[in-house]
Amino acid sequence: MPKSQVKPTAEWRRKLHEIIYEADTPAGKLFDVLLLVVIIISVILVLLESVPSLGSRFAEEFIMAEWVITIFFTIEYVLRIVTINKPSKYIFSFYGIIDLLSTAPLYLTFFLPGGYNALLAVRSLRLLRVFRILKITRFIGEADKLSKALKSSFPKILVFLFAVLVISIIMGTLMYLVEGADSGFVSIPVSIYWCIVTLTTVGFGDIAPVTPMGQFLASVIMIMGYGIIAVPTGIVSAEYTSGAKDKKPADPLNNPEYRHVNTQVCQNCLAKKHQDGATYCHKCGYSL
Amino acid sequence: MPKSQVKPTAEWRRKLHEIIYEADTPAGKLFDVLLLVVIIISVILVLLESVPSLGSRFAEEFIMAEWVITIFFTIEYVLRIVTINKPSKYIFSFYGIIDLLSTAPLYLTFFLPGGYNALLAVRSLRLLRVFRILKITRFIGEADKLSKALKSSFPKILVFLFAVLVISIIMGTLMYLVEGADSGFVSIPVSIYWCIVTLTTVGFGDIAPVTPMGQFLASVIMIMGYGIIAVPTGIVSAEYTSGAKDKKPADPLNNPEYRHVNTQVCQNCLAKKHQDGATYCHKCGYSL
Amino acid sequence: MPKSQVKPTAEWRRKLHEIIYEADTPAGKLFDVLLLVVIIISVILVLLESVPSLGSRFAEEFIMAEWVITIFFTIEYVLRIVTINKPSKYIFSFYGIIDLLSTAPLYLTFFLPGGYNALLAVRSLRLLRVFRILKITRFIGEADKLSKALKSSFPKILVFLFAVLVISIIMGTLMYLVEGADSGFVSIPVSIYWCIVTLTTVGFGDIAPVTPMGQFLASVIMIMGYGIIAVPTGIVSAEYTSGAKDKKPADPLNNPEYRHVNTQVCQNCLAKKHQDGATYCHKCGYSL
Amino acid sequence: MPKSQVKPTAEWRRKLHEIIYEADTPAGKLFDVLLLVVIIISVILVLLESVPSLGSRFAEEFIMAEWVITIFFTIEYVLRIVTINKPSKYIFSFYGIIDLLSTAPLYLTFFLPGGYNALLAVRSLRLLRVFRILKITRFIGEADKLSKALKSSFPKILVFLFAVLVISIIMGTLMYLVEGADSGFVSIPVSIYWCIVTLTTVGFGDIAPVTPMGQFLASVIMIMGYGIIAVPTGIVSAEYTSGAKDKKPADPLNNPEYRHVNTQVCQNCLAKKHQDGATYCHKCGYSL
Repeated sequence: MPKSQVKPTAEWRRKLHEIIYEADTPAGKLFDVLLLVVIIISVILVLLESVPSLGSRFAEEFIMAEWVITIFFTIEYVLRIVTINKPSKYIFSFYGIIDLLSTAPLYLTFFLPGGYNALLAVRSLRLLRVFRILKITRFIGEADKLSKALKSSFPKILVFLFAVLVISIIMGTLMYLVEGADSGFVSIPVSIYWCIVTLTTVGFGDIAPVTPMGQFLASVIMIMGYGIIAVPTGIVSAEYTSGAKDKKPADPLNNPEYRHVNTQVCQNCLAKKHQDGATYCHKCGYSL
Repeated sequence: MPKSQVKPTAEWRRKLHEIIYEADTPAGKLFDVLLLVVIIISVILVLLESVPSLGSRFAEEFIMAEWVITIFFTIEYVLRIVTINKPSKYIFSFYGIIDLLSTAPLYLTFFLPGGYNALLAVRSLRLLRVFRILKITRFIGEADKLSKALKSSFPKILVFLFAVLVISIIMGTLMYLVEGADSGFVSIPVSIYWCIVTLTTVGFGDIAPVTPMGQFLASVIMIMGYGIIAVPTGIVSAEYTSGAKDKKPADPLNNPEYRHVNTQVCQNCLAKKHQDGATYCHKCGYSL
Repeated sequence: MPKSQVKPTAEWRRKLHEIIYEADTPAGKLFDVLLLVVIIISVILVLLESVPSLGSRFAEEFIMAEWVITIFFTIEYVLRIVTINKPSKYIFSFYGIIDLLSTAPLYLTFFLPGGYNALLAVRSLRLLRVFRILKITRFIGEADKLSKALKSSFPKILVFLFAVLVISIIMGTLMYLVEGADSGFVSIPVSIYWCIVTLTTVGFGDIAPVTPMGQFLASVIMIMGYGIIAVPTGIVSAEYTSGAKDKKPADPLNNPEYRHVNTQVCQNCLAKKHQDGATYCHKCGYSL
Repeated sequence: MPKSQVKPTAEWRRKLHEIIYEADTPAGKLFDVLLLVVIIISVILVLLESVPSLGSRFAEEFIMAEWVITIFFTIEYVLRIVTINKPSKYIFSFYGIIDLLSTAPLYLTFFLPGGYNALLAVRSLRLLRVFRILKITRFIGEADKLSKALKSSFPKILVFLFAVLVISIIMGTLMYLVEGADSGFVSIPVSIYWCIVTLTTVGFGDIAPVTPMGQFLASVIMIMGYGIIAVPTGIVSAEYTSGAKDKKPADPLNNPEYRHVNTQVCQNCLAKKHQDGATYCHKCGYSL
């Protein structure tokens, strides 16, 4: 969108946008810290509420705290929509959806009819508030790099996961055949579950082979699992090693120091990583 | 085989060959998707049939579905043989054997005499249908690369596996000597099984040392296992790192983008990876 | 501090400083060996004292041995302070704090009032003597390199740990929802604990999913954990591989052979890594 | 030793030396295969003898087989000493000691006095026959490379193991303090054992924390263990990656293909890796 087509933005919207979406000004930093604290408190409350002894004793306090937090997130959500030129850009972004999920649960409980099933649904809804923890990813710059490395080695890791699944299905069926229901291998799906437990070297021990043949097969699975783990590690290692080499003469936009200085977000299209002295968005030409 | 010696192929065989062995035409793609769906349904049916509550309730439905799937695979198998010039090439290939194993079980049950043992054999046969999952490997291009990397580091990994076995045998014997039958170490083979469980860091906990000396030995085994895992990982990492470097100026036949475009398979010798504009097979000169 | 401002040090202080802080002279080596032996004996005594059968039988001997060791460490601590020009430099260093913690417990028990709670505090204090093991790090040169490598990959590993935590919180909540209190998932914090146990492939098996949905979710967590472990390994591998390349033309001060020859420590500022023929400290100019 | 000082060797000794120590002639190959088979049978017999149901049923057969194997190994041991010029070179080598340990157990049982304790000693002696598996390492060429890679990264891995031990001692003491004897943490050594079980991600589950504080500490230990495993892996990966680069223009003596062709062993000093056309030992000048 060329700059000339953009209608002028009211001063208060500019200010609020800067406070909410950026972290360059003192007010913006304060808002970020406040948001971080509320997110962490909110998640801790969800965890503590589930502890039986605490949940029943401080039931009222938990509901009150929940209301305060929900109202805070509601205000944040509304402001984020109001201060942006194209709300749909934000609403359907990853963070927009997370923010909605973090805010909605308490309101949704009003729309549910009474009865036991509804209570269950309410309980599930309330627990989904734990996804608020994902709001925190907004604050982690390094995560970008990690997720990029994971993304680039994803197709290889997928093949590896598929191999794990195929091995689990075949070995699970063999274990079911060899051990049978008496040793806890009551069905093939359960045997496959046990096979994944063993192949990943977790080994709960709730189910364990007892026949010599079963123990031999289990040994084979374990040694396979022990060897297979080398594959994703090797892939990621190679990815990182080559990545570290290629990215050294990096462009300034990828440089973490540079990015730290500049947390501006375009009010029009939510584009990030603007150069330090930039006056217009490098994507849509909107004045920053 | 020079091209001139090849007898002309009937038009319907060419068409069918293209549909079944290749994925360039819409009909070929449809066939592939259909095959994929039937394979997955077939494996899921095997898994669900083993769940006691489902197996008895829907016994008839499972048998009917099994007949439908077996007939489908029979047709596929016959067509694959019919549309190829040298059926033996296909029949004794990896996929040919897998396809036969996927089709045969239900037919084989007719040749078994009655009685309990036969029932057991039938049950085993029916469960072996789970190997049908291997038919799916046909659709995974990346698997080639993975299996090649594994193959090239196989001799080193074999030495490593042998080391794991030697350590397990020696430490297993020592644990049997130290802990004895009271702690569950009832024989050396069981002790070796426990040793593999521990060395691979699986740790079921169905058998665990109780004497101080046994716990000390177990600690040594665990730390050895924890350190040894570095060896195959290091091997595969080095293999991948060096592989990534060597293969960069790769020949076009190894390039995955290229391969994706061209899924042609020679009707005469099953050779793959033909160049995009190729008219004759690069291996046997047969017209594609 | 320029050399001229430094007051002359008494001969016995110089000697003692050399014996205690350095390992170049026979007396210095003897002191180091003696200290090492006392540390190891001291830690072993703490461990053995906790064994019920030994603790009650040899109660008096343990107390006597503890007095001997405490007096030895007291003398060491006092001498370290006395023989240094700026005691505060030592007292607030990592080793100074460890040395204080290694010496103080027995004395502190005198200041505690009687009663059951005091006994508990005394027991805790006595057990904290186990931190004496950290005194041993003084003797390990390689540890420097390891901790440096860990420090340089720390921010990346932190992001990874954060990812593990976020996954554990979300999956823990889902498991609590799916399995419920009957399977041992009595509260979300316990579910998160179970999730960490599973994600890190430890798998105690004290809590294990029993519903099909729970076992499916557990399988997802396990495979995630099995794959995620590749990330820190890849990071450290890349760090080591690139580190091994960069550090080859190393400066002599980092060369371990060189460092071994020279264990001098400046009496004034505790600076290390003096060049072999150095007469003055390279940091503060104090005569060595 | 110059060649002239060496006394001439009888023809039969030369022949036998070639058969026993080398694998270039058909007789030498046959001897190697025979030895390999006897070793494997011998170890399998030790394992099977320990299975209660088999051990009592085939007691006589086991003793007879043991006599046959012991006599075979005795002959091999005597021949190895007789056909070599300096028997002490062989006797005190790694393989010489393993060969002695593989032969001696049955003879030693004659020198033991009667009574229960002697029976226990006999049983232990008999079980030590399992070390015969180490005789097999003679046949594995790749093992040299692996053990060399392990040796070169040993000091780094030692520091890592020491770190694991220090962490286990400190965290074990804390867990003992927090959980106490009621949860199975009956003494600090047991707590340390549990800590190693957890840190290495084995996780038997025979002991598991039950208090919230203990579960929190356990989570910290697990995540530490999950992260620490990256260190040895990174070290070995870097070692392998750099090793693969440095060793490419390898000298012919290290080249495995070359070594395979030439299995000659000097009859005088047991030196290996002679060049293909060599007539005299490259170490002692003895005629090959």
